Amino acid sequence: MTLPRTARIVEVGPRSGLQNENYVLTTEDKAAFIRLLSATGLQDIEAVAFLNPRIVPQLADADELAAQLPQASRVRYTAHVPDMDGLAHAMEFGFPRISIPLSASETYSRKTVHMSVGESLTALRSIAGRAIHEGIAIRVSVSTCFVCPYEGPVAPEKVAELALAMLSVGVEEISIGDTIGAATPRDIETLLNLLLVRIPAGLLAMNFHDTYGMAIANTYQALQMGVGIFDGSAGGIGSCPFAPGAAGNVATEDLLFLFQRLGIETGISLNLMRRASRFAGAILGHPLPSHVLKTATAQEPS
Amino acid sequence: MTLPRTARIVEVGPRSGLQNENYVLTTEDKAAFIRLLSATGLQDIEAVAFLNPRIVPQLADADELAAQLPQASRVRYTAHVPDMDGLAHAMEFGFPRISIPLSASETYSRKTVHMSVGESLTALRSIAGRAIHEGIAIRVSVSTCFVCPYEGPVAPEKVAELALAMLSVGVEEISIGDTIGAATPRDIETLLNLLLVRIPAGLLAMNFHDTYGMAIANTYQALQMGVGIFDGSAGGIGSCPFAPGAAGNVATEDLLFLFQRLGIETGISLNLMRRASRFAGAILGHPLPSHVLKTATAQEPS
Repeated sequence: MTLPRTARIVEVGPRSGLQNENYVLTTEDKAAFIRLLSATGLQDIEAVAFLNPRIVPQLADADELAAQLPQASRVRYTAHVPDMDGLAHAMEFGFPRISIPLSASETYSRKTVHMSVGESLTALRSIAGRAIHEGIAIRVSVSTCFVCPYEGPVAPEKVAELALAMLSVGVEEISIGDTIGAATPRDIETLLNLLLVRIPAGLLAMNFHDTYGMAIANTYQALQMGVGIFDGSAGGIGSCPFAPGAAGNVATEDLLFLFQRLGIETGISLNLMRRASRFAGAILGHPLPSHVLKTATAQEPS
Repeated sequence: MTLPRTARIVEVGPRSGLQNENYVLTTEDKAAFIRLLSATGLQDIEAVAFLNPRIVPQLADADELAAQLPQASRVRYTAHVPDMDGLAHAMEFGFPRISIPLSASETYSRKTVHMSVGESLTALRSIAGRAIHEGIAIRVSVSTCFVCPYEGPVAPEKVAELALAMLSVGVEEISIGDTIGAATPRDIETLLNLLLVRIPAGLLAMNFHDTYGMAIANTYQALQMGVGIFDGSAGGIGSCPFAPGAAGNVATEDLLFLFQRLGIETGISLNLMRRASRFAGAILGHPLPSHVLKTATAQEPS
């Protein structure tokens, strides 16, 4: 099988990562963290979320943070936006891209966005329509594409149906999320076999979680099937909300290590990524789950 | 690709795992740990090593421990034996199987067993010849089969040459070790393509380390190529000696989770395995790197 020659990593640490940390960082620390990330060679950083600050206090300073984002010509910042109000904020701060949440599981959808999947899709269409009119690119972050923490296995056909519906909306990227990290490479193969007959690989991103240690195996499976966009979180920040102490988002460094060893170009410096992640660990005040970050003293194969 | 319908896990936590822990356990705690492991359904446990006690104080009580091993008819205990003196101890305690170390890298061989690879192979032949004469089965644990911490990449041809030499010795199992955990699935594919034209898959075990988070991806690659024996360490005990704090041997629970989700039978209870690993974590007094062990409170897909 042929692997892609290049891959793109969407850094979700400042948003999805910090959202799941208990400790609330200062705006200054977040801005410093994003400055370090912006210097790594990353092209896409999901930097803020315009959410209800009472529900997600970790990200309540989105306006202040948005105003402090470093201008780095190579980096595109994405704002996470669940509704029209969030879109208004994203427009105010001139974000070139937004990510909109969607769930593939009914129960997870109701528990997180308090809407059915159908209602959520309708809302997504409104937000996306307005955003596209404003020249803002759309990324959809689909959660529970394999296993729902409440319902169990999610039918791949359901995910494929949602993905097709999003195509017609005009989205730039569909992020396929394994929210609780329970998928195996076999599950990735099954779902991607369904998706790739209808959706170009270039529109698909994979959002893997390392809760059960499967993230890199799943990444390799997706790479072999031609997918080249992956969500990562610096240091693996953001634990699994369903298993305190367990890993959440796959660590960006772990993805980078795999890509480097496979000869897949990302344009990102592993050393600068380590520096950003070590800073995140220091300001959060606890060890991060990233494998590669712990190997700083090891002899590193080049 | 077809996956094996069954897989066998060789539990190496009490030997390879504890050897790399700083804290020296009491013989009673080790015996209790092995009792818990013996109750999980595991068929093979590498329980002791007959080494120089001054060099490896963690395993210095091998004689006492060997005398306390629980009699479990389903479990076969293996003793790690680097020389004829070790073999004498293994015979004294009636071990049905021994594992003998070998390195694929010259520098690693000299630094660990103070012999060249050629000298080590000669020693292995003497030990194995005597053991086979006594009806003891032989496992060879080959280290640095992909990357040497001193020399860098190891030529797959060198590993294949060693494996072929061992075939003629009459070994039961050759464990292919990724000692520093730096191999990717692509490296596994390359080496196994070389090995499997000359060596039956049933003679090969894979010893993966999760130092860089690659172990499960590598396991899945080997499974797809027909290999069905994997070394695991309960809880992932035994850090990487070349990177303090980093993971070493892949956690047995992480392997089990993958196998269960792929429908591959092992005969091992994940819940009983978790119990044994939690005990190991408690007596060692620190969190273990296993992913699955940290998910005890998560909703677990069955």
